[in-house]
Amino acid sequence: MDSEQFRKYGYEFIDWLVDYFENIEDYPVKPTVAPGDIKKLLPDAPPMQGEAMDLIFQDFRKKIVPGITHWQHPGWMAYFPANNSPASVLAELLTAGLGLQCMIWQTSPAAAELEETVMDWLRKMLGLPETFTGVIQDTASTATLCALLSAREKSTSYNCNLKGVAGNLRVYATAETHSSIEKGVKIAGLGKENLQIIETDDEFAMRADALEARIKLDIELGFIPACVVATLGSTSSMAMDPVDAIAAVCQKYSIWLHVDAAFAGTAAVVPELRGFMKGVEHADSFVFNPHKWMLTNFDCSAYFVKDTAALIRTFSIQPEYLKTGADAQVHNYRDWGIQLGRRFRALKLWFVIRSYGLEGIQKMVRTHVQLAEELAQRMVADGRFQIMAPVKLSLVCFRFNPGHYSEEQLDKLNRKLLECINASGAVFLTHTSLRGKYTIRVAIGSHTTTRKHVETAWEIIRKAAEEQINTFRH
Amino acid sequence: MDSEQFRKYGYEFIDWLVDYFENIEDYPVKPTVAPGDIKKLLPDAPPMQGEAMDLIFQDFRKKIVPGITHWQHPGWMAYFPANNSPASVLAELLTAGLGLQCMIWQTSPAAAELEETVMDWLRKMLGLPETFTGVIQDTASTATLCALLSAREKSTSYNCNLKGVAGNLRVYATAETHSSIEKGVKIAGLGKENLQIIETDDEFAMRADALEARIKLDIELGFIPACVVATLGSTSSMAMDPVDAIAAVCQKYSIWLHVDAAFAGTAAVVPELRGFMKGVEHADSFVFNPHKWMLTNFDCSAYFVKDTAALIRTFSIQPEYLKTGADAQVHNYRDWGIQLGRRFRALKLWFVIRSYGLEGIQKMVRTHVQLAEELAQRMVADGRFQIMAPVKLSLVCFRFNPGHYSEEQLDKLNRKLLECINASGAVFLTHTSLRGKYTIRVAIGSHTTTRKHVETAWEIIRKAAEEQINTFRH
Repeated sequence: MDSEQFRKYGYEFIDWLVDYFENIEDYPVKPTVAPGDIKKLLPDAPPMQGEAMDLIFQDFRKKIVPGITHWQHPGWMAYFPANNSPASVLAELLTAGLGLQCMIWQTSPAAAELEETVMDWLRKMLGLPETFTGVIQDTASTATLCALLSAREKSTSYNCNLKGVAGNLRVYATAETHSSIEKGVKIAGLGKENLQIIETDDEFAMRADALEARIKLDIELGFIPACVVATLGSTSSMAMDPVDAIAAVCQKYSIWLHVDAAFAGTAAVVPELRGFMKGVEHADSFVFNPHKWMLTNFDCSAYFVKDTAALIRTFSIQPEYLKTGADAQVHNYRDWGIQLGRRFRALKLWFVIRSYGLEGIQKMVRTHVQLAEELAQRMVADGRFQIMAPVKLSLVCFRFNPGHYSEEQLDKLNRKLLECINASGAVFLTHTSLRGKYTIRVAIGSHTTTRKHVETAWEIIRKAAEEQINTFRH
Repeated sequence: MDSEQFRKYGYEFIDWLVDYFENIEDYPVKPTVAPGDIKKLLPDAPPMQGEAMDLIFQDFRKKIVPGITHWQHPGWMAYFPANNSPASVLAELLTAGLGLQCMIWQTSPAAAELEETVMDWLRKMLGLPETFTGVIQDTASTATLCALLSAREKSTSYNCNLKGVAGNLRVYATAETHSSIEKGVKIAGLGKENLQIIETDDEFAMRADALEARIKLDIELGFIPACVVATLGSTSSMAMDPVDAIAAVCQKYSIWLHVDAAFAGTAAVVPELRGFMKGVEHADSFVFNPHKWMLTNFDCSAYFVKDTAALIRTFSIQPEYLKTGADAQVHNYRDWGIQLGRRFRALKLWFVIRSYGLEGIQKMVRTHVQLAEELAQRMVADGRFQIMAPVKLSLVCFRFNPGHYSEEQLDKLNRKLLECINASGAVFLTHTSLRGKYTIRVAIGSHTTTRKHVETAWEIIRKAAEEQINTFRH
């Protein structure tokens, strides 16, 4: 493909994206395809000769697009959002065109220094103290693994890296903690049995007194408490662990405190919403995902750490072929995480923050939080809906509970209700389980979602619920 | 930014990229900036109000571009390449615009099924047997970590995931193995001391007899041999470990064999170059990076594994909020690797393979291999250059050795020579150390590199070398 062909299709793809953004509501949020439907449209073998871009693009529109789930749809209220934005997409275009691999400073000085700069901007935006230094990771899974590994090494004087894991290191979290913590504990060789589940209070938040009791017991039993993972904004219910009380325990026993605020972190840009961050300044590491609520294309996770020397010592490798004359003066981010190779992710963050400004991001967050409050109020006013967890930030957890149903029936009823809601195509919600009860989540946070869409969602939920009353067989 | 603004800047950015591709040779491959030069151009704090895209784009051109290292430059002969291509950049634009997060089938069925399809295309293109199943990882670092973890779990009946690492598991590789293997061994909690370095032959390839002797000894000493990592195309010298002989040892002792062909794997698309792959069909896992030599934007690493059940059991997590009705019938790739979140990487692979066709990729690889052979012939014919490792595929390792210099002087001379070559700006080479000797690498593989550029590189190398003779102080 020559330059003029690239230009022609570049324009065409931009035009297609403009149409896509403007007409995204014409698609069902989730496609109705069955497993295997898309695969059978695709040939078993690659072509021998190159094919025309016209044909490839046509296949993209006819075979791929009908089978995708539309994460940027205003009816996306599933899981958590993974927002892009026009500014972010434009930056990703430049990133792809430049085709850099930013493993070390030398392989793109501007990328390394822009990353330092925008991560410090983010630190300031969230009100994190100067003691934190930021680095971009791909996902919170990876960032949390970095925290677990740093904690593992620091608590054993870097001996696990050398000798292997001793098997007596303990990690503490709650049952509400994200699944990536259990996964990270396994990957780091710590063993799932050493992930201690701490009791939660009525709002699904970690009880600091229970944490301290468990730590004391573990020390008596000869275990080494290595890391506590506190969650700000759990996936299931937006639960907020009390970081200040937890930090006090961690400091008392010299334990690495990692804070996972993957979704909720973005809300800290709004001063009046920042209360949940209390005590974060005492943590050792903190992660949130600009690729969730901060308008920055997936993937882009912001990891902040106090003891950068511990992070670097955990991951440092020094093969001859990667040594450069500048090493002593620069950040070589290869040693700040799992992967050697790194995309130029700082560019899209820079574009997004500058394009929206702090006030633009604050405005979006405030709107989403307001819309969630309004939805919860409607549910409460209706009387037949039960709010299953305190409404925090932009997540509403509910079930339909019109009375006279057993717990088992309620689970079944709400499972059917969710299917019915999602069958509308206009909205996509997902479920969780809270204290064993089937719970439907409404996670507001797509940059395209406005009051109109939340009102539509409410109408769909209410009508689907009423339909359930009429059709539900006990 | 509204749709029309997005369209306007989309066109402008496409136009800028066309200019960039056409005039990339006007830039020095590596910028001349000093540490801190870029950072001081950037404000310390983010803007409160959003800024115009005109201003952001202007800053990109004036402040960022002068500080980047141009990986797509035809004079890029450093490290290994990280090729993009017009088709790949266009696909990345669509990927960014769609903004999908492909953690499970339900969150984009077409993405999951396209990944299955293109990974099977790649398997066929490389001549891998049907027993291999592919999954996209971000980098070879991550893929190799997946292999180490699968091996760790399979060799201990999945007990490390549960109890933690026992400390008696051993991994085998050579000193030429990529640094990501040592890093992976540390991350997996196996301990660097349990990474056993096996002797190499004259061509820097693992000696299978030495491997077997070490394994026997380890078993006698009570260690459990968990994994052997064989390299096809080492970073320093393109060394090829004898996979067939190594596989025979691994089968005899039931040890997981992982093959790291991160760069070289692409060459397997050319039948007459495929000899180095002999025995790969007996491996348990295999990785190569389409983002290196196969024209697909970084990041995109292709990981193939035989025992997918072992892979999935190693990584499987089942939180309630991720369960779907389709789980039994589909690939949920969240359980095939480290991260939960996943970009839609299959799209760019599909665009690249279809746009070039198998023959287009073969043609590029054949050209690069031919150019490397020609360069080596010129060096040999000159008489003053020493080829430091057998020339394999597209890598030439050399030093300037005009006689009468000690080893120490040769190291110093060639260090200065490399600086002088790179100061030209027209070419960027990097170094390594082979058997303790400072060695300069010419890694040909950028899709923009033609015979003219290699001839220019040779002229620069030769003149810089002659200059060294005149100016070098012993």
